[in-house]
Amino acid sequence: MENKNDSITSRDVDFAQWYTDVCKKAELMDYSSVKGFIIYRPYGYRIWEEIQHYLDAKFKKLGVENVYMPLVIPESLFNKEKEHVTGFAPEVLEATLGGNQKIEDPLIIRPTSEVLFCDHYAKIISSYRDLPKKYNQWCSVVRWEKTTRPFLRGSEFLWQEGHTMFASAEEARHDALQILELYDKLGRDLLAIPFSKGRKTEKEKFAGALETYGIEALMHDGKALQAGTTHYFGDGFARHFGISYLGKDNKLSVPFQASWGVSTRLIGALIMVHGDDNGLVLPPYVAPIQVVIVPIQQKRPEVLKKAHELYDILANKGLRVKLDDSDHTPGWKYAEYEMKGVPIRLEVGPRDIENDCYNLVKRNDGQKVQTNENDLANNIENLLATIHQEMYQKALHFLKSHIVEVKTMDEVGKVGEEGGYAKAMWCGDPNCEAAVKERFQMTARCLPFDQSPHDDKCVCCGKKADKVVLFAKAY
Amino acid sequence: MENKNDSITSRDVDFAQWYTDVCKKAELMDYSSVKGFIIYRPYGYRIWEEIQHYLDAKFKKLGVENVYMPLVIPESLFNKEKEHVTGFAPEVLEATLGGNQKIEDPLIIRPTSEVLFCDHYAKIISSYRDLPKKYNQWCSVVRWEKTTRPFLRGSEFLWQEGHTMFASAEEARHDALQILELYDKLGRDLLAIPFSKGRKTEKEKFAGALETYGIEALMHDGKALQAGTTHYFGDGFARHFGISYLGKDNKLSVPFQASWGVSTRLIGALIMVHGDDNGLVLPPYVAPIQVVIVPIQQKRPEVLKKAHELYDILANKGLRVKLDDSDHTPGWKYAEYEMKGVPIRLEVGPRDIENDCYNLVKRNDGQKVQTNENDLANNIENLLATIHQEMYQKALHFLKSHIVEVKTMDEVGKVGEEGGYAKAMWCGDPNCEAAVKERFQMTARCLPFDQSPHDDKCVCCGKKADKVVLFAKAY
Repeated sequence: MENKNDSITSRDVDFAQWYTDVCKKAELMDYSSVKGFIIYRPYGYRIWEEIQHYLDAKFKKLGVENVYMPLVIPESLFNKEKEHVTGFAPEVLEATLGGNQKIEDPLIIRPTSEVLFCDHYAKIISSYRDLPKKYNQWCSVVRWEKTTRPFLRGSEFLWQEGHTMFASAEEARHDALQILELYDKLGRDLLAIPFSKGRKTEKEKFAGALETYGIEALMHDGKALQAGTTHYFGDGFARHFGISYLGKDNKLSVPFQASWGVSTRLIGALIMVHGDDNGLVLPPYVAPIQVVIVPIQQKRPEVLKKAHELYDILANKGLRVKLDDSDHTPGWKYAEYEMKGVPIRLEVGPRDIENDCYNLVKRNDGQKVQTNENDLANNIENLLATIHQEMYQKALHFLKSHIVEVKTMDEVGKVGEEGGYAKAMWCGDPNCEAAVKERFQMTARCLPFDQSPHDDKCVCCGKKADKVVLFAKAY
Repeated sequence: MENKNDSITSRDVDFAQWYTDVCKKAELMDYSSVKGFIIYRPYGYRIWEEIQHYLDAKFKKLGVENVYMPLVIPESLFNKEKEHVTGFAPEVLEATLGGNQKIEDPLIIRPTSEVLFCDHYAKIISSYRDLPKKYNQWCSVVRWEKTTRPFLRGSEFLWQEGHTMFASAEEARHDALQILELYDKLGRDLLAIPFSKGRKTEKEKFAGALETYGIEALMHDGKALQAGTTHYFGDGFARHFGISYLGKDNKLSVPFQASWGVSTRLIGALIMVHGDDNGLVLPPYVAPIQVVIVPIQQKRPEVLKKAHELYDILANKGLRVKLDDSDHTPGWKYAEYEMKGVPIRLEVGPRDIENDCYNLVKRNDGQKVQTNENDLANNIENLLATIHQEMYQKALHFLKSHIVEVKTMDEVGKVGEEGGYAKAMWCGDPNCEAAVKERFQMTARCLPFDQSPHDDKCVCCGKKADKVVLFAKAY
């Protein structure tokens, strides 16, 4: 049993250490004996399950079908698309021994599955009737990373990867943009995180894609986190893999492709957007426990009896509620569920029962709300909705106040130091983008969809510029 | 587009070929470029999702929590429990290169995760308050198999593995037996498969377990298929891994362990228990599509209009329904959804609409039932329940008629030739068990829970015997 009353590092003292402390002490994860391969503990995995549950239902409504592709890719197949290989080769894990025998064509543990989907699509797509194909898989992928951090950069992480094929370029690009909107909605509805959306620059786009779109979240320390991407591939991969179909016009055509994914990075975003010096603060709809009931003087029989009655009322409403009747002190329990970021604490003591008046304590701002038993379920449902809105608005305010329009390189650097996005005009020259990165370690996070210019000169070279870019330090 | 009207091999001509034909033509799976690593296509994966959905809800009600453990196990950690290593070592896949560098302690791709769970439990269990621990994970595992068959024996397959820790031996054994009951219920409720349940012999039990329990299903060809197992470990692994806890009595104790799992083998069981010469026959509650609507003369506008109306009625009831309005002929569609084993076909043609009288065709026996629009949803819900019962009873009758009480080795061998279980008395000597295997290639599938003796002499050596065993050829 870990002692929950150990204090965690303050965010202002050492944000990185605070993050690690929260990951461990809120029991989201643990380290395994292999660097970068983390254990997703029940509390952390349950957050991922809620994200899966939300997205999977939405995917299915869009006609997406789940599949499961092999864990391994033969090296020879992996090498088929050159640009893609170059992007991933330095960080692959390779299996070379099977049943103690050398494997002739070594097996790459999938870092992403584009080539597997393309190889399969080449076999099953032959007629216009076979299109569109909208496949997705939930799985783990492996990237042999040198520097790893829980949820943010791992040698293994969990994700979903959608790979889709369409008869026309328009449909494929539309798919990439439609799923980006869905990811954005996931932020609004479930994670209480406002994202910045936009297109990636040539330098930042996915290996092999023609266009990459991304959602970016701004962390409490002012650094950006790429939280999800969608890609439009044109027909490049399809040509490489010999995918074609006979149209209604009886002609052979090559289909157009998109792909998209989000990962357990979203858990990292949840921690760093909402957390505070007492630990996690979870938005209600993604929280594994929405309400924790803490009995006071639980040795008195009427207390546990009433606590169980209130538990049943909330559980029957479909709320995720936990009654902690362990022999820890109430003080220990307060600290424990604060650390775990449970949105509402419901206290049940003898006096509360006598007065039919219970305290609901909000994790996000510590405020107390009172309720009687009769209105308990309604009041809690409303309070969860209120907390979600408050958390979203707070994060939105933080985001808006950290997007700074800049016109000079000095101003870009100042934003880099203070945290947030430098919204700058850019001529489109990769050298200017590279200069910003070299001087300030800030990367082009995206070309936001709102491209209203605030200047007409490139922030770097001063030449004519009509592109709006968000630069930031990033995870 | 594959031609669905290709005939498949008859079961009586070549059962193995029939099985492969069905796997491919019902689009359950496809082969990848690596032997034994199959692609779970949407129709096959969706069956697995229904199984997951059923079990996961039941697990959660029992207080089981989902986690995700790393994909890889360092060889040094894997070697910690000798018996376990010996059981798995010949069939592991090992990664030896990461980012093009040699990995000093090679990484075994998990064939099962006992050692990972134990390693983690050693860190997080220290007090009586930390027990019980009931963790489960849904994942894929890798076993480098020489002979592979889709769903039955793969180099990679999907499964769930539960690993639990308790303060007492009784609780741990109870857990193994309780989950076995749950697996049995999965058969009755979802798969329409009756299982034979029992304990495994010493020879057949899991590497490292004290007791192994299993559910066995009987395939159409008379061979048995182990469909799930649960294990009681005692405190053996816990001692090896240094897991202990401080009790309420302030003494250090070692906890007791169980584990349990079912895999995508269950899909193989579904195919071979229920399938027929026209393809798959799926029980209604696990079927990805429960009702397929086939429009007749769909160019007439009233046909598709009505087909969509009926679709909406059924979809709004939460039924899994598909309307196939593609430009294939009705005959093609009939064959397609027969191959895919869809429980009910609903035909919608001009005359049906005019008469408000629709044909429902049952996949399991080809019989037709008629309904008007008003009673459609009710009639279909009832018909699905009827089909489930019919399929379960048919499989149960087949099972019962293939359990043959035997008293001599010749009779054992005869059952082996004809298919089914030879229910025999056994003295408990492993040599007798081995003799049956050597002579007839039949293994002890289990010591069934009903141990009522029909003789008092061992079927092999003739000595005094009080154990009832089911011998069979097995997948």
